[in-house]
Amino acid sequence: MNVLKLKHMLELFFIEDIGDTDVTSDFIFRESEKDELYFVAKEAGIFCGKDILEVGFRVLDDSIEVTTFKSDGDIVKPFDTIAVARGQVATLLKGERVILNLLQRLSGIATMTKKAVELTAHTGVIITDTRKTTPGLRMLEKYAVRCGGGKNHRNSLDDAIMIKDNHIAYAGSITEAVNRVKKKAGHTLKIEVEVETKEMMEEAIAAGVDIIMFDNCSPQTLREWLPFVPKSILTEASGGIHLENVREYAETGIDVLSLGCLTHSVKALDISAKVFK
Amino acid sequence: MNVLKLKHMLELFFIEDIGDTDVTSDFIFRESEKDELYFVAKEAGIFCGKDILEVGFRVLDDSIEVTTFKSDGDIVKPFDTIAVARGQVATLLKGERVILNLLQRLSGIATMTKKAVELTAHTGVIITDTRKTTPGLRMLEKYAVRCGGGKNHRNSLDDAIMIKDNHIAYAGSITEAVNRVKKKAGHTLKIEVEVETKEMMEEAIAAGVDIIMFDNCSPQTLREWLPFVPKSILTEASGGIHLENVREYAETGIDVLSLGCLTHSVKALDISAKVFK
Amino acid sequence: MNVLKLKHMLELFFIEDIGDTDVTSDFIFRESEKDELYFVAKEAGIFCGKDILEVGFRVLDDSIEVTTFKSDGDIVKPFDTIAVARGQVATLLKGERVILNLLQRLSGIATMTKKAVELTAHTGVIITDTRKTTPGLRMLEKYAVRCGGGKNHRNSLDDAIMIKDNHIAYAGSITEAVNRVKKKAGHTLKIEVEVETKEMMEEAIAAGVDIIMFDNCSPQTLREWLPFVPKSILTEASGGIHLENVREYAETGIDVLSLGCLTHSVKALDISAKVFK
Amino acid sequence: MNVLKLKHMLELFFIEDIGDTDVTSDFIFRESEKDELYFVAKEAGIFCGKDILEVGFRVLDDSIEVTTFKSDGDIVKPFDTIAVARGQVATLLKGERVILNLLQRLSGIATMTKKAVELTAHTGVIITDTRKTTPGLRMLEKYAVRCGGGKNHRNSLDDAIMIKDNHIAYAGSITEAVNRVKKKAGHTLKIEVEVETKEMMEEAIAAGVDIIMFDNCSPQTLREWLPFVPKSILTEASGGIHLENVREYAETGIDVLSLGCLTHSVKALDISAKVFK
Amino acid sequence: MNVLKLKHMLELFFIEDIGDTDVTSDFIFRESEKDELYFVAKEAGIFCGKDILEVGFRVLDDSIEVTTFKSDGDIVKPFDTIAVARGQVATLLKGERVILNLLQRLSGIATMTKKAVELTAHTGVIITDTRKTTPGLRMLEKYAVRCGGGKNHRNSLDDAIMIKDNHIAYAGSITEAVNRVKKKAGHTLKIEVEVETKEMMEEAIAAGVDIIMFDNCSPQTLREWLPFVPKSILTEASGGIHLENVREYAETGIDVLSLGCLTHSVKALDISAKVFK
Amino acid sequence: MNVLKLKHMLELFFIEDIGDTDVTSDFIFRESEKDELYFVAKEAGIFCGKDILEVGFRVLDDSIEVTTFKSDGDIVKPFDTIAVARGQVATLLKGERVILNLLQRLSGIATMTKKAVELTAHTGVIITDTRKTTPGLRMLEKYAVRCGGGKNHRNSLDDAIMIKDNHIAYAGSITEAVNRVKKKAGHTLKIEVEVETKEMMEEAIAAGVDIIMFDNCSPQTLREWLPFVPKSILTEASGGIHLENVREYAETGIDVLSLGCLTHSVKALDISAKVFK
Repeated sequence: MNVLKLKHMLELFFIEDIGDTDVTSDFIFRESEKDELYFVAKEAGIFCGKDILEVGFRVLDDSIEVTTFKSDGDIVKPFDTIAVARGQVATLLKGERVILNLLQRLSGIATMTKKAVELTAHTGVIITDTRKTTPGLRMLEKYAVRCGGGKNHRNSLDDAIMIKDNHIAYAGSITEAVNRVKKKAGHTLKIEVEVETKEMMEEAIAAGVDIIMFDNCSPQTLREWLPFVPKSILTEASGGIHLENVREYAETGIDVLSLGCLTHSVKALDISAKVFK
Repeated sequence: MNVLKLKHMLELFFIEDIGDTDVTSDFIFRESEKDELYFVAKEAGIFCGKDILEVGFRVLDDSIEVTTFKSDGDIVKPFDTIAVARGQVATLLKGERVILNLLQRLSGIATMTKKAVELTAHTGVIITDTRKTTPGLRMLEKYAVRCGGGKNHRNSLDDAIMIKDNHIAYAGSITEAVNRVKKKAGHTLKIEVEVETKEMMEEAIAAGVDIIMFDNCSPQTLREWLPFVPKSILTEASGGIHLENVREYAETGIDVLSLGCLTHSVKALDISAKVFK
Repeated sequence: MNVLKLKHMLELFFIEDIGDTDVTSDFIFRESEKDELYFVAKEAGIFCGKDILEVGFRVLDDSIEVTTFKSDGDIVKPFDTIAVARGQVATLLKGERVILNLLQRLSGIATMTKKAVELTAHTGVIITDTRKTTPGLRMLEKYAVRCGGGKNHRNSLDDAIMIKDNHIAYAGSITEAVNRVKKKAGHTLKIEVEVETKEMMEEAIAAGVDIIMFDNCSPQTLREWLPFVPKSILTEASGGIHLENVREYAETGIDVLSLGCLTHSVKALDISAKVFK
Repeated sequence: MNVLKLKHMLELFFIEDIGDTDVTSDFIFRESEKDELYFVAKEAGIFCGKDILEVGFRVLDDSIEVTTFKSDGDIVKPFDTIAVARGQVATLLKGERVILNLLQRLSGIATMTKKAVELTAHTGVIITDTRKTTPGLRMLEKYAVRCGGGKNHRNSLDDAIMIKDNHIAYAGSITEAVNRVKKKAGHTLKIEVEVETKEMMEEAIAAGVDIIMFDNCSPQTLREWLPFVPKSILTEASGGIHLENVREYAETGIDVLSLGCLTHSVKALDISAKVFK
Repeated sequence: MNVLKLKHMLELFFIEDIGDTDVTSDFIFRESEKDELYFVAKEAGIFCGKDILEVGFRVLDDSIEVTTFKSDGDIVKPFDTIAVARGQVATLLKGERVILNLLQRLSGIATMTKKAVELTAHTGVIITDTRKTTPGLRMLEKYAVRCGGGKNHRNSLDDAIMIKDNHIAYAGSITEAVNRVKKKAGHTLKIEVEVETKEMMEEAIAAGVDIIMFDNCSPQTLREWLPFVPKSILTEASGGIHLENVREYAETGIDVLSLGCLTHSVKALDISAKVFK
Repeated sequence: MNVLKLKHMLELFFIEDIGDTDVTSDFIFRESEKDELYFVAKEAGIFCGKDILEVGFRVLDDSIEVTTFKSDGDIVKPFDTIAVARGQVATLLKGERVILNLLQRLSGIATMTKKAVELTAHTGVIITDTRKTTPGLRMLEKYAVRCGGGKNHRNSLDDAIMIKDNHIAYAGSITEAVNRVKKKAGHTLKIEVEVETKEMMEEAIAAGVDIIMFDNCSPQTLREWLPFVPKSILTEASGGIHLENVREYAETGIDVLSLGCLTHSVKALDISAKVFK
């Protein structure tokens, strides 16, 4: 993760939430009032967000001390203490909401990813994410997928070539699109093509691509088509894959499964900030 | 909505997704290739995001023409065309993903809010959001709640005074917290206090607050306690309220229901970008 | 105050004043030359700006040590030492002007506010500011008003509803404007209406607003009209109120006085930076 | 003026004032409601701010049409219409306050500068500003001084060399400071030294500076000392010069008078935004 | 290219060069003075920078009209007119220097790349750049390489895996570094390893990498070692390759040559801005 | 140098180079792996970049310790250790490239400047730079010129008045341009005019300028014309001056030589980052 970028993101998020003055905390507490705030898991899952806690409070006030008891990727159970922050009460309360919003979301992503990874571990399939991330949070959400044992698909449009349905429609054909792109693409870039029919698959193989992505195909269809793909080409399935059917997809022999739901339909992991008095 | 702020947000989001070069679209298409891209609903719901489409494409390239057929708050059904954008193919493809990620999320929020509003319309209760929004998207998510017929809770920490469990724990008591805050609070700010027990409710009433928020109380408890709150004080329930129980909560006679799930557990509304050839 | 935001503001201000190189200090002094710089009051008033000194020098160079002898809201007299900064001479000289410009302005605001508060202390009236603040300095100027014993009016357009003369002119009437706004306003927002005539006051009362603001009314007029306002509605007077007439306005029985002059016609408090050799 | 920089400044200022939503204007008016807003002088003075009006509204919404009837530097009298803006009512109301705050302040500066220029026109003295400008507004305030007929002192620390009392104290002497600076200064930079005594003046002359600034000297003192300054050196007086004594200072034969009060003690020119119905 | 990012870059560059006021052009010319400015090649080469001209002047002032006569990648000869800009004289003069600095640099890069491409065209080798670009200009410099007929190496550290000498030294061995990286790398990322000896090459082949980069090897060495690399692995040479020896390197049978000199030792192409009177 | 501005520049540069994740270093190394990285000169020259090393690594991670053995302006020889950085291996590797790109460029500028200064030392001429700097790097490149013993020409368009060929063409004549500018220019600004013919030189002298810049004149021409320039006017030559002819130009008796090549045709000084195992 790029911690420098994380700092800028956290600054934006705190300024969005705090505004000019926290008219509750700033008006109740004096600078001299200091105390502790505990971050506690309220349900079981995979934790992600150590840097959010450490960098987050440091960005707000570098005299806040944060001790973390869990690392990214660790299992948490209800009542597990994740971290404790010590410092000015008004600052602890100003930071609490943004930090929780992020911890809960990222841990939710890591937890769902872990489930998909465990359900498919016997197959050796790679579980990966998509670009259906929350605008502004991609770096963090992709990191959370890695903490859950998944791997990342391309990060942005300049990382890999991915020729999708709309590219093919505008260009006229897979062959035309691949030919055009090969004239300009650098040698470090892989070329992936999205296919929906067997004819498209055959066209992609002939065009010489690195990865074929089967879009919205059933496990049954994949089982029929995969034997026709040469070993040197990686295969990926996407579209409508979720925890209920991920095992069935994995058992088709596909190399990679990409799940939009890992980031666009997150169930936050319940974590709360508590004062113990 | 603050359109100036929206522009800055969209710029950040496009730069996050595009990086330096769209190595697919920029390498396949020439500047002179122009075409149309349709945004089509794939399930029923409430649309939110007209400005995302219009400002979004203008931010990318002001020669893109966008025609919208739906306004914010309109009902959409499967196959309804929401908008069409016309212009350079490479730019349409660069903008598609960020715009869809936002449209789907905001329309999902508007749709869920509308359901809560309709389930409780016979009671006159106000359905409202919380600060459990996605960091960086608060302005948009709060706008989506309004498009679904909900109203907004405070926008940020400088909008209203809200004394929550942790404030009370650090300050010692509700009375102490309210007394301290009243010494500094301006006359345009309302004071809201979160209570969990009947004793706390009585203490809040005695302290002279504007709004009492009942946290994690059952509908049964609310029915018992609400008769003791003077009419001049607004009542709000929060914590664990969702579409399944919102009607039961509304029928307790409470004034306001705030639902974290409107923004932290969004089910995206399925909308896609299609080329018709 | 939001210290994170203050840091960003101070960075902008220092970059504006310093440019790329301080061609005087950087060309005269070596890095190894260190010394002390004293900030001394040259006239009597209320000090405001401890964070400017502490955060300001830290933003420039975190090896500068700042010791402050006055807290925000303290009385200063001529020759009182407010603070001393120790560190690289070139950095002290680079920071001096921006810091003084802010200290003098904020202390000037706190001083004028204090005078208004003291002149009206026997009446219990609330002295408050307006949105006539210097663009870019609102957070700081509103903070200075609080240091002088005043309270803040709304901070920005999203904090409270305030229906002014132009809103009423465009909407057609107070009743129409209030009715429209109530359909969308959240429960944490108060509604304030500006009135200029007794008929407008009566219309505002009938429309059910929280605060009535009397614009450019004489104390005599206020004394006549205020008895007709129900106790549940807060009353505010604004327009042409300054130190010469604030006492007379306060004695009318009005609840709140808002003074544009606190921020738009500031007389800087004289503070200087001195080397003692 | 750098219009690109002005746009960025105005964006910051509007975002500061508007926040996420103008809960008054956005909740009262629909997008389709359009009208006119007039900017009218309420007292006599020199107008400054044409770009604020034109760029300001364009930054908010480029469909707003602004017609200006006054140019920067023009005389305005009470009831003179300065400009009219036409477009969405909600946008006109969102932009009004920030634009007025700037117009009033800049016109106030231009007006005071004009008075100083007229009071001293018979002497040929140059009226100039200082670095005692409002943090964040220097470009605009220096522009306003030019609109009033004044000229600008250096803009920032990298524009000219100015050796002030504290530089001299740290360096040990004027001679030492000038010698050090000459080793590094480029050929386009002038060197100015601040002096308080006749000995310092003589030392500055001997050190070979371009400008001597007499700090806090009386007109009487200036008349005595100026004959000893060679013609090739420009002379400037500063410190405690204001409209009441500027003529007396100008008649001493000094070349330049710099007035901090032009920017640190501004009396805003009264301008208002009116709806005519 | 990401035009949105280009706009932000150009804004930064113009603000750096202009400061608050162009004290020459703004003081000489009135707003009403309009004219033409021609951009003319003074030596032969490959042009790159159409967007710099078009977006650059639009960013400064959208009433400037720019007509370009050359496209990116076109050959220019001395006295060829590249573009003409028409509009306010003061704006043309404010924009001239930044635009020329960029045009000259980018066209210099395109020109040198073209030479390398032409010298090696008979071999089919790919000419590519490195990360030795000017900080802040990477997107533009990589674009210029493409305009000259080259292709791009990875754009940033998140685009491809490249295990260099220092990674190997810290990790202990190529095998260890590759094994570690494979545990986390996504399926769209290629793995490249830098080798200096035949043993390292063999270790890289055994470790299963996609690309082997030979660092600072002579053409003679390459000819000896390349036959041992399996066809499925791409080969790249880097280090000390320039126009004088690029042909000899290309004839070794290597797949890719990366030249740091394309961006770190640019000879600007001479282009000037002329007024024709 | 303005260190605050340097920090912002370095943040931009690191974010450009790193992106979201360093998929090589972040995937190979754990947080607990720490080591040393040496910066070593590989050729002889003048070092410039101490702040780049110290501020650069601090910006990335303030637990990195940097020890520098050379100061800006020091001579370095091959194998000289310039600095050593100690800390997390992954961070050292993330920072290496940006820091080297800057050190090499700035040291290259300082080295070339030093050569020009030494070649002309017997004449007392001032060696100075131009505005032909790399967009975004002006502050640093002008600093490097000072480290090499040169002095700086104006930093930006608001520092000094410089009437160039295009200004004269648009304005009609030198006399007209100078007259117009004098009406608005402040007393701290010098006026420089670019001339190409003897007639222009005479016109400039008559117009009363501070500096005359001879553009693209041969040393022979300068020797003929310089005797006609009064001593009170500084003389500068520019255009086509480089290390091969700088001595001949200096010996003409000119006061200042400005060399565009110091910043637009930099030969980077070879410096590398090494792990010693």
